[in-house]
Amino acid sequence: MKNLLIASTSTVYGGTYLDYLAEEMAELFKGTNEIIFIPYARPGGITHDEYTEKAASAFQKIDKKLIGLHTFKNPAEAINSAKGVFTGGGNTFVLVNALYHFEAMQPLREAIFKGLPYMGTSAGSNICGVSMQTTNDMPIIYPPSFKTLGAVPFNLNPHYLDPEPDSKHMGETRETRIKEFHTQNTVPVVGLREGSWLRVTGEKIVLKGKLKARIFEQGKDAYEVESGTEFSNFKV
Amino acid sequence: MKNLLIASTSTVYGGTYLDYLAEEMAELFKGTNEIIFIPYARPGGITHDEYTEKAASAFQKIDKKLIGLHTFKNPAEAINSAKGVFTGGGNTFVLVNALYHFEAMQPLREAIFKGLPYMGTSAGSNICGVSMQTTNDMPIIYPPSFKTLGAVPFNLNPHYLDPEPDSKHMGETRETRIKEFHTQNTVPVVGLREGSWLRVTGEKIVLKGKLKARIFEQGKDAYEVESGTEFSNFKV
Repeated sequence: MKNLLIASTSTVYGGTYLDYLAEEMAELFKGTNEIIFIPYARPGGITHDEYTEKAASAFQKIDKKLIGLHTFKNPAEAINSAKGVFTGGGNTFVLVNALYHFEAMQPLREAIFKGLPYMGTSAGSNICGVSMQTTNDMPIIYPPSFKTLGAVPFNLNPHYLDPEPDSKHMGETRETRIKEFHTQNTVPVVGLREGSWLRVTGEKIVLKGKLKARIFEQGKDAYEVESGTEFSNFKV
Repeated sequence: MKNLLIASTSTVYGGTYLDYLAEEMAELFKGTNEIIFIPYARPGGITHDEYTEKAASAFQKIDKKLIGLHTFKNPAEAINSAKGVFTGGGNTFVLVNALYHFEAMQPLREAIFKGLPYMGTSAGSNICGVSMQTTNDMPIIYPPSFKTLGAVPFNLNPHYLDPEPDSKHMGETRETRIKEFHTQNTVPVVGLREGSWLRVTGEKIVLKGKLKARIFEQGKDAYEVESGTEFSNFKV
Protein backbone atom coordinates (compact mmCIF):
# COMPACT_ATOMS: atom_id res chain seq x y z
CA MET A 1 0.00 0.00 0.00
CA LYS A 2 1.68 3.13 -1.26
CA ASN A 3 2.16 6.09 1.07
CA LEU A 4 3.59 9.21 -0.56
CA LEU A 5 3.64 12.97 -0.31
CA ILE A 6 4.61 14.53 -3.64
CA ALA A 7 5.10 18.31 -3.33
CA SER A 8 5.68 20.92 -6.01
CA THR A 9 8.19 22.89 -3.95
CA SER A 10 10.02 22.73 -0.62
CA THR A 11 9.39 26.39 0.08
CA VAL A 12 6.46 28.65 -0.74
CA TYR A 13 6.92 32.38 -1.30
CA GLY A 14 7.30 34.15 2.04
CA GLY A 15 7.67 30.87 3.94
CA THR A 16 10.60 28.89 5.30
CA TYR A 17 11.93 25.53 4.17
CA LEU A 18 9.17 22.86 4.41
CA ASP A 19 7.11 24.89 6.94
CA TYR A 20 3.84 24.66 5.00
CA LEU A 21 4.15 20.85 4.88
CA ALA A 22 4.96 20.26 8.58
CA GLU A 23 1.58 18.78 9.45
CA GLU A 24 1.47 16.46 6.42
CA MET A 25 5.08 15.37 7.03
CA ALA A 26 4.31 14.49 10.65
CA GLU A 27 1.33 12.43 9.49
CA LEU A 28 3.25 10.67 6.70
CA PHE A 29 6.16 9.73 8.95
CA LYS A 30 4.16 9.03 12.12
CA GLY A 31 5.44 5.44 12.25
CA THR A 32 9.15 6.28 12.52
CA ASN A 33 11.52 8.76 14.14
CA GLU A 34 14.34 8.17 11.69
CA ILE A 35 14.15 9.12 8.03
CA ILE A 36 16.70 8.72 5.26
CA PHE A 37 17.37 11.86 3.25
CA ILE A 38 18.44 11.65 -0.40
CA PRO A 39 20.56 14.79 -0.97
CA TYR A 40 21.76 13.87 -4.48
CA ALA A 41 19.94 16.69 -6.33
CA ARG A 42 22.29 19.28 -4.73
CA PRO A 43 20.41 22.57 -5.30
CA GLY A 44 22.86 25.31 -6.26
CA GLY A 45 25.60 22.67 -6.09
CA ILE A 46 25.69 22.48 -2.26
CA THR A 47 27.37 19.43 -0.77
CA HIS A 48 25.50 16.36 0.44
CA ASP A 49 26.45 17.24 4.03
CA GLU A 50 25.27 20.84 3.76
CA TYR A 51 22.00 19.80 2.18
CA THR A 52 21.35 17.10 4.78
CA GLU A 53 21.99 19.61 7.56
CA LYS A 54 19.47 22.03 6.05
CA ALA A 55 16.80 19.37 5.68
CA ALA A 56 17.52 17.89 9.12
CA SER A 57 16.80 21.19 10.85
CA ALA A 58 13.33 21.30 9.28
CA PHE A 59 12.66 17.72 10.41
CA GLN A 60 13.88 18.49 13.92
CA LYS A 61 10.80 20.70 14.29
CA ILE A 62 8.58 17.61 13.99
CA ASP A 63 10.97 15.59 16.21
CA LYS A 64 12.37 13.40 13.45
CA LYS A 65 15.99 12.52 12.82
CA LEU A 66 17.26 12.75 9.25
CA ILE A 67 20.25 10.72 8.00
CA GLY A 68 21.87 11.43 4.64
CA LEU A 69 21.89 8.48 2.23
CA HIS A 70 25.43 9.51 1.24
CA THR A 71 26.70 8.47 4.70
CA PHE A 72 25.84 4.81 4.07
CA LYS A 73 28.42 2.51 2.51
CA ASN A 74 25.69 0.67 0.61
CA PRO A 75 22.85 3.05 -0.36
CA ALA A 76 20.70 0.25 -1.82
CA GLU A 77 20.80 -1.67 1.46
CA ALA A 78 20.05 1.50 3.41
CA ILE A 79 16.94 2.04 1.27
CA ASN A 80 15.89 -1.58 1.82
CA SER A 81 15.85 -1.14 5.57
CA ALA A 82 14.57 2.44 5.65
CA LYS A 83 11.40 3.32 7.59
CA GLY A 84 10.91 6.57 5.69
CA VAL A 85 12.61 8.46 2.84
CA PHE A 86 12.67 12.14 1.86
CA THR A 87 14.21 13.29 -1.43
CA GLY A 88 14.92 17.02 -1.69
CA GLY A 89 14.87 19.24 -4.77
CA GLY A 90 17.70 20.51 -6.92
CA ASN A 91 18.75 19.26 -10.33
CA THR A 92 16.74 16.24 -11.49
CA PHE A 93 19.45 15.07 -13.93
CA VAL A 94 22.04 15.01 -11.14
CA LEU A 95 19.58 13.23 -8.83
CA VAL A 96 18.58 10.56 -11.35
CA ASN A 97 22.18 10.02 -12.42
CA ALA A 98 23.23 9.44 -8.80
CA LEU A 99 20.29 7.09 -8.08
CA TYR A 100 21.35 4.94 -11.04
CA HIS A 101 25.05 5.22 -10.19
CA PHE A 102 24.46 3.95 -6.64
CA GLU A 103 21.94 1.36 -7.87
CA ALA A 104 19.31 2.88 -5.60
CA MET A 105 16.53 3.53 -8.15
CA GLN A 106 15.14 0.00 -8.27
CA PRO A 107 15.34 -0.65 -4.48
CA LEU A 108 13.58 2.69 -3.89
CA ARG A 109 10.83 1.77 -6.35
CA GLU A 110 10.32 -1.62 -4.72
CA ALA A 111 10.27 -0.15 -1.22
CA ILE A 112 7.68 2.47 -2.26
CA PHE A 113 5.44 -0.21 -3.79
CA LYS A 114 5.72 -2.16 -0.51
CA GLY A 115 4.53 0.87 1.51
CA LEU A 116 7.65 2.85 2.45
CA PRO A 117 6.54 6.36 3.49
CA TYR A 118 8.13 8.62 0.88
CA MET A 119 8.19 12.39 0.56
CA GLY A 120 9.55 14.33 -2.40
CA THR A 121 9.81 18.02 -3.20
CA SER A 122 10.52 19.39 -6.68
CA ALA A 123 13.19 17.07 -8.20
CA GLY A 124 12.28 14.55 -5.48
CA SER A 125 8.71 14.69 -6.82
CA ASN A 126 9.73 14.54 -10.47
CA ILE A 127 11.22 11.10 -9.90
CA CYS A 128 7.86 9.77 -8.65
CA GLY A 129 6.60 9.99 -12.23
CA VAL A 130 6.97 7.46 -15.02
CA SER A 131 9.94 9.44 -16.34
CA MET A 132 11.82 12.64 -15.51
CA GLN A 133 11.03 14.00 -18.95
CA THR A 134 8.84 16.87 -17.77
CA THR A 135 11.43 18.38 -15.45
CA ASN A 136 12.28 22.08 -15.78
CA ASP A 137 15.94 21.45 -15.02
CA MET A 138 19.01 21.83 -17.21
CA PRO A 139 20.62 18.63 -18.51
CA ILE A 140 23.91 19.35 -16.71
CA ILE A 141 24.79 15.66 -16.54
CA TYR A 142 23.89 12.73 -18.84
CA PRO A 143 22.04 10.07 -16.84
CA PRO A 144 21.92 6.45 -18.05
CA SER A 145 18.13 6.69 -18.45
CA PHE A 146 15.26 9.16 -18.04
CA LYS A 147 13.04 6.43 -16.53
CA THR A 148 12.13 7.05 -12.91
CA LEU A 149 10.15 5.44 -10.08
CA GLY A 150 6.72 5.23 -11.67
CA ALA A 151 5.11 5.50 -8.24
CA VAL A 152 2.20 7.30 -9.93
CA PRO A 153 0.82 6.53 -13.42
CA PHE A 154 1.72 9.95 -14.85
CA ASN A 155 4.55 12.50 -14.96
CA LEU A 156 4.94 15.55 -12.76
CA ASN A 157 5.77 19.11 -13.66
CA PRO A 158 6.63 20.74 -10.33
CA HIS A 159 6.81 24.55 -9.96
CA TYR A 160 4.15 24.70 -12.68
CA LEU A 161 4.00 28.24 -14.05
CA ASP A 162 1.11 29.84 -15.93
CA PRO A 163 1.99 31.88 -19.02
CA GLU A 164 2.41 35.58 -18.26
CA PRO A 165 0.00 37.50 -20.47
CA ASP A 166 2.25 40.61 -20.60
CA SER A 167 5.52 38.78 -21.19
CA LYS A 168 7.75 39.96 -24.02
CA HIS A 169 9.87 36.82 -23.77
CA MET A 170 9.77 34.65 -26.89
CA GLY A 171 10.96 31.39 -25.30
CA GLU A 172 8.42 28.58 -24.96
CA THR A 173 5.86 28.71 -22.14
CA ARG A 174 5.63 25.78 -19.77
CA GLU A 175 2.39 24.67 -21.43
CA THR A 176 4.06 24.69 -24.87
CA ARG A 177 6.93 22.58 -23.53
CA ILE A 178 4.53 20.01 -22.07
CA LYS A 179 2.58 19.94 -25.34
CA GLU A 180 5.86 19.23 -27.13
CA PHE A 181 6.38 16.34 -24.68
CA HIS A 182 3.11 14.91 -25.95
CA THR A 183 4.37 14.89 -29.52
CA GLN A 184 6.82 12.21 -28.33
CA ASN A 185 5.10 10.55 -25.37
CA THR A 186 1.64 9.38 -24.27
CA VAL A 187 2.14 9.69 -20.47
CA PRO A 188 -0.21 12.29 -18.89
CA VAL A 189 1.38 15.20 -17.00
CA VAL A 190 0.22 16.85 -13.78
CA GLY A 191 1.36 20.48 -13.51
CA LEU A 192 1.66 21.11 -9.75
CA ARG A 193 1.73 24.78 -8.75
CA GLU A 194 3.89 25.88 -5.83
CA GLY A 195 1.94 25.17 -2.63
CA SER A 196 0.20 22.10 -4.09
CA TRP A 197 0.98 18.50 -3.32
CA LEU A 198 -0.34 15.03 -4.00
CA ARG A 199 -1.09 12.64 -1.17
CA VAL A 200 -0.93 9.01 -2.26
CA THR A 201 -2.38 6.31 -0.02
CA GLY A 202 -2.67 2.94 -1.67
CA GLU A 203 -4.24 3.54 -5.07
CA LYS A 204 -5.83 6.80 -3.92
CA ILE A 205 -4.17 10.00 -5.14
CA VAL A 206 -5.56 13.32 -3.86
CA LEU A 207 -4.58 16.88 -4.82
CA LYS A 208 -3.96 18.97 -1.70
CA GLY A 209 -3.09 22.60 -0.89
CA LYS A 210 -5.13 25.65 -1.87
CA LEU A 211 -4.48 25.75 -5.61
CA LYS A 212 -5.79 23.96 -8.65
CA ALA A 213 -3.54 21.70 -10.70
CA ARG A 214 -3.28 21.70 -14.50
CA ILE A 215 -3.61 18.39 -16.31
CA PHE A 216 -2.13 17.63 -19.70
CA GLU A 217 -3.19 14.59 -21.70
CA GLN A 218 -2.09 13.73 -25.19
CA GLY A 219 -4.62 14.87 -27.79
CA LYS A 220 -6.74 16.90 -25.33
CA ASP A 221 -6.81 20.53 -24.29
CA ALA A 222 -5.17 21.09 -20.91
CA TYR A 223 -7.62 21.46 -18.04
CA GLU A 224 -7.77 22.41 -14.37
CA VAL A 225 -8.68 20.25 -11.38
CA GLU A 226 -9.65 21.56 -7.95
CA SER A 227 -7.85 20.84 -4.70
CA GLY A 228 -9.40 17.73 -3.16
CA THR A 229 -9.78 16.01 -6.52
CA GLU A 230 -9.14 12.29 -6.37
CA PHE A 231 -6.86 11.43 -9.23
CA SER A 232 -7.76 7.80 -8.75
CA ASN A 233 -11.32 8.59 -9.88
CA PHE A 234 -10.43 9.84 -13.32
CA LYS A 235 -8.16 8.28 -15.84
CA VAL A 236 -4.96 10.26 -16.27
CA MET B 1 37.56 29.33 -42.08
CA LYS B 2 34.36 29.18 -40.04
CA ASN B 3 31.38 31.29 -41.06
CA LEU B 4 28.43 31.23 -38.64
CA LEU B 5 25.53 33.27 -37.38
CA ILE B 6 24.39 32.06 -33.97
CA ALA B 7 21.19 33.82 -32.86
CA SER B 8 19.39 33.71 -29.52
CA THR B 9 15.93 33.68 -31.09
CA SER B 10 14.25 33.54 -34.51
CA THR B 11 11.75 36.22 -33.57
CA VAL B 12 12.05 39.30 -31.38
CA TYR B 13 9.07 40.70 -29.50
CA GLY B 14 6.85 42.65 -31.89
CA GLY B 15 8.72 41.40 -34.96
CA THR B 16 8.09 38.68 -37.51
CA TYR B 17 10.00 35.45 -38.07
CA LEU B 18 13.69 36.22 -38.80
CA ASP B 19 12.98 39.83 -39.87
CA TYR B 20 15.61 41.42 -37.59
CA LEU B 21 18.28 39.11 -39.04
CA ALA B 22 17.50 39.65 -42.75
CA GLU B 23 20.60 41.75 -43.48
CA GLU B 24 22.98 39.41 -41.66
CA MET B 25 21.39 36.36 -43.32
CA ALA B 26 21.85 37.90 -46.76
CA GLU B 27 25.49 38.61 -45.97
CA LEU B 28 26.15 35.12 -44.52
CA PHE B 29 24.58 33.32 -47.47
CA LYS B 30 25.74 35.71 -50.22
CA GLY B 31 27.64 32.91 -52.01
CA THR B 32 24.60 30.68 -52.61
CA ASN B 33 20.94 30.82 -53.56
CA GLU B 34 20.08 27.42 -52.13
CA ILE B 35 20.20 26.62 -48.44
CA ILE B 36 19.43 23.42 -46.61
CA PHE B 37 17.04 23.77 -43.69
CA ILE B 38 17.21 21.43 -40.70
CA PRO B 39 13.63 21.27 -39.36
CA TYR B 40 14.26 18.50 -36.80
CA ALA B 41 13.63 20.64 -33.68
CA ARG B 42 9.90 20.86 -34.56
CA PRO B 43 8.71 23.80 -32.37
CA GLY B 44 5.30 23.03 -30.91
CA GLY B 45 5.54 19.65 -32.63
CA ILE B 46 4.86 20.97 -36.17
CA THR B 47 5.80 18.69 -39.03
CA HIS B 48 9.06 18.95 -40.96
CA ASP B 49 7.11 20.11 -44.03
CA GLU B 50 5.19 22.80 -42.14
CA TYR B 51 8.35 24.08 -40.50
CA THR B 52 10.28 24.16 -43.77
CA GLU B 53 7.46 26.11 -45.40
CA LYS B 54 7.52 28.68 -42.61
CA ALA B 55 11.28 29.14 -42.80
CA ALA B 56 11.27 29.18 -46.61
CA SER B 57 8.90 32.13 -46.73
CA ALA B 58 11.32 34.18 -44.60
CA PHE B 59 14.22 33.24 -46.89
CA GLN B 60 12.19 34.11 -49.98
CA LYS B 61 12.40 37.74 -48.85
CA ILE B 62 16.17 37.65 -49.37
CA ASP B 63 15.76 35.66 -52.62
CA LYS B 64 17.05 32.37 -51.29
CA LYS B 65 15.55 28.92 -51.77
CA LEU B 66 15.28 26.69 -48.72
CA ILE B 67 15.16 22.88 -48.97
CA GLY B 68 14.25 20.71 -45.98
CA LEU B 69 16.92 18.19 -44.97
CA HIS B 70 14.11 15.68 -44.37
CA THR B 71 13.42 15.55 -48.14
CA PHE B 72 16.83 13.98 -48.87
CA LYS B 73 17.22 10.24 -48.85
CA ASN B 74 20.69 10.56 -47.33
CA PRO B 75 20.89 13.57 -44.97
CA ALA B 76 24.64 13.14 -44.35
CA GLU B 77 25.38 13.34 -48.08
CA ALA B 78 23.10 16.35 -48.42
CA ILE B 79 25.07 18.13 -45.70
CA ASN B 80 28.34 17.22 -47.41
CA SER B 81 27.32 18.95 -50.62
CA ALA B 82 25.40 21.86 -49.02
CA LYS B 83 26.37 25.46 -49.80
CA GLY B 84 24.59 26.80 -46.73
CA VAL B 85 22.66 25.40 -43.74
CA PHE B 86 20.05 26.90 -41.42
CA THR B 87 18.86 25.07 -38.31
CA GLY B 88 15.67 26.42 -36.74
CA GLY B 89 14.63 26.41 -33.10
CA GLY B 90 12.30 24.11 -31.22
CA ASN B 91 13.22 21.32 -28.84
CA THR B 92 16.98 20.76 -28.59
CA PHE B 93 16.61 17.15 -27.40
CA VAL B 94 14.49 16.27 -30.43
CA LEU B 95 16.94 18.08 -32.73
CA VAL B 96 20.06 16.42 -31.32
CA ASN B 97 18.40 13.02 -31.27
CA ALA B 98 17.48 13.34 -34.97
CA LEU B 99 20.96 14.59 -35.96
CA TYR B 100 22.47 11.49 -34.35
CA HIS B 101 19.77 9.20 -35.73
CA PHE B 102 20.41 10.37 -39.31
CA GLU B 103 24.18 10.39 -38.74
CA ALA B 104 24.26 14.07 -39.68
CA MET B 105 26.02 15.51 -36.58
CA GLN B 106 29.59 14.63 -37.58
CA PRO B 107 29.20 15.64 -41.29
CA LEU B 108 27.70 18.97 -40.16
CA ARG B 109 30.60 19.58 -37.78
CA GLU B 110 33.15 18.80 -40.47
CA ALA B 111 31.40 21.01 -43.04
CA ILE B 112 31.27 23.92 -40.57
CA PHE B 113 34.98 23.59 -39.81
CA LYS B 114 35.66 23.64 -43.58
CA GLY B 115 33.72 26.92 -43.99
CA LEU B 116 30.07 26.00 -44.64
CA PRO B 117 27.93 29.11 -43.98
CA TYR B 118 25.74 28.08 -41.04
CA MET B 119 22.95 29.87 -39.29
CA GLY B 120 21.20 28.74 -36.13
CA THR B 121 18.42 30.18 -34.01
CA SER B 122 17.60 29.00 -30.48
CA ALA B 123 17.96 25.17 -30.53
CA GLY B 124 19.91 25.59 -33.81
CA SER B 125 22.31 27.81 -31.85
CA ASN B 126 22.49 25.54 -28.83
CA ILE B 127 24.03 22.81 -30.98
CA CYS B 128 26.90 25.13 -31.98
CA GLY B 129 28.25 24.79 -28.44
CA VAL B 130 30.42 22.06 -26.99
CA SER B 131 27.31 20.37 -25.59
CA MET B 132 23.56 20.96 -25.45
CA GLN B 133 23.71 20.93 -21.66
CA THR B 134 22.70 24.56 -21.17
CA THR B 135 19.49 24.32 -23.17
CA ASN B 136 16.24 25.52 -21.58
CA ASP B 137 14.25 22.74 -23.21
CA MET B 138 12.46 19.78 -21.71
CA PRO B 139 14.09 16.35 -22.10
CA ILE B 140 11.14 14.97 -24.06
CA ILE B 141 13.31 12.42 -25.85
CA TYR B 142 16.54 10.64 -24.77
CA PRO B 143 19.32 11.42 -27.25
CA PRO B 144 22.34 9.10 -27.57
CA SER B 145 24.63 11.91 -26.39
CA PHE B 146 24.51 15.55 -25.21
CA LYS B 147 27.67 16.36 -27.22
CA THR B 148 27.07 18.81 -30.05
CA LEU B 149 28.99 20.56 -32.84
CA GLY B 150 31.62 22.40 -30.82
CA ALA B 151 31.76 25.11 -33.50
CA VAL B 152 32.57 27.58 -30.70
CA PRO B 153 34.70 26.82 -27.60
CA PHE B 154 31.85 27.39 -25.16
CA ASN B 155 28.16 26.58 -24.59
CA LEU B 156 25.19 28.76 -25.45
CA ASN B 157 22.17 29.66 -23.40
CA PRO B 158 19.75 31.20 -25.92
CA HIS B 159 16.71 33.22 -24.77
CA TYR B 160 18.79 34.25 -21.76
CA LEU B 161 16.49 35.67 -19.08
CA ASP B 162 17.47 37.95 -16.21
CA PRO B 163 15.97 37.15 -12.81
CA GLU B 164 12.77 39.08 -12.13
CA PRO B 165 13.26 41.06 -8.91
CA ASP B 166 9.53 40.94 -8.02
CA SER B 167 8.98 37.29 -8.83
CA LYS B 168 7.24 35.14 -6.25
CA HIS B 169 8.23 31.98 -8.11
CA MET B 170 10.52 29.67 -6.14
CA GLY B 171 11.92 27.69 -9.08
CA GLU B 172 15.57 28.25 -10.00
CA THR B 173 16.53 31.35 -11.99
CA ARG B 174 18.44 30.90 -15.25
CA GLU B 175 21.62 32.10 -13.55
CA THR B 176 21.23 29.50 -10.79
CA ARG B 177 20.75 26.76 -13.38
CA ILE B 178 23.90 27.76 -15.24
CA LYS B 179 25.83 27.92 -11.95
CA GLU B 180 24.64 24.36 -11.28
CA PHE B 181 25.99 23.41 -14.72
CA HIS B 182 29.39 24.62 -13.50
CA THR B 183 29.29 22.25 -10.54
CA GLN B 184 29.53 19.44 -13.12
CA ASN B 185 31.30 21.02 -16.13
CA THR B 186 34.14 23.45 -16.89
CA VAL B 187 32.87 24.74 -20.28
CA PRO B 188 32.09 28.51 -20.23
CA VAL B 189 28.53 29.59 -21.08
CA VAL B 190 27.39 32.59 -23.10
CA GLY B 191 23.90 33.78 -22.14
CA LEU B 192 22.50 35.36 -25.32
CA ARG B 193 19.49 37.64 -24.78
CA GLU B 194 16.73 37.74 -27.39
CA GLY B 195 17.89 40.10 -30.16
CA SER B 196 21.59 39.21 -29.74
CA TRP B 197 23.64 37.02 -32.02
CA LEU B 198 27.21 35.90 -32.49
CA ARG B 199 28.93 36.32 -35.84
CA VAL B 200 31.78 33.84 -36.30
CA THR B 201 34.28 34.39 -39.12
CA GLY B 202 37.33 32.19 -38.90
CA GLU B 203 38.52 32.34 -35.31
CA LYS B 204 36.84 35.72 -34.75
CA ILE B 205 33.62 35.68 -32.71
CA VAL B 206 31.76 38.98 -32.30
CA LEU B 207 28.65 39.76 -30.22
CA LYS B 208 26.07 41.62 -32.31
CA GLY B 209 22.64 43.20 -31.77
CA LYS B 210 21.84 45.96 -29.30
CA LEU B 211 22.07 44.06 -26.04
CA LYS B 212 24.83 42.90 -23.74
CA ALA B 213 25.50 39.20 -23.21
CA ARG B 214 26.09 37.52 -19.86
CA ILE B 215 29.14 35.30 -19.48
CA PHE B 216 29.43 32.45 -17.01
CA GLU B 217 32.77 30.86 -16.22
CA GLN B 218 33.41 28.20 -13.62
CA GLY B 219 34.65 29.66 -10.35
CA LYS B 220 33.98 33.31 -11.34
CA ASP B 221 31.10 35.70 -10.85
CA ALA B 222 28.98 36.08 -13.98
CA TYR B 223 29.71 39.25 -15.94
CA GLU B 224 28.34 41.31 -18.84
CA VAL B 225 29.98 42.05 -22.20
CA GLU B 226 28.93 44.82 -24.59
CA SER B 227 27.70 44.35 -28.14
CA GLY B 228 30.71 44.49 -30.45
CA THR B 229 32.90 42.55 -28.04
CA GLU B 230 35.27 40.16 -29.77
CA PHE B 231 35.06 36.88 -27.96
CA SER B 232 38.26 35.84 -29.66
CA ASN B 233 40.10 38.53 -27.67
CA PHE B 234 39.31 37.15 -24.27
CA LYS B 235 39.50 33.62 -23.02
CA VAL B 236 36.10 32.13 -22.45
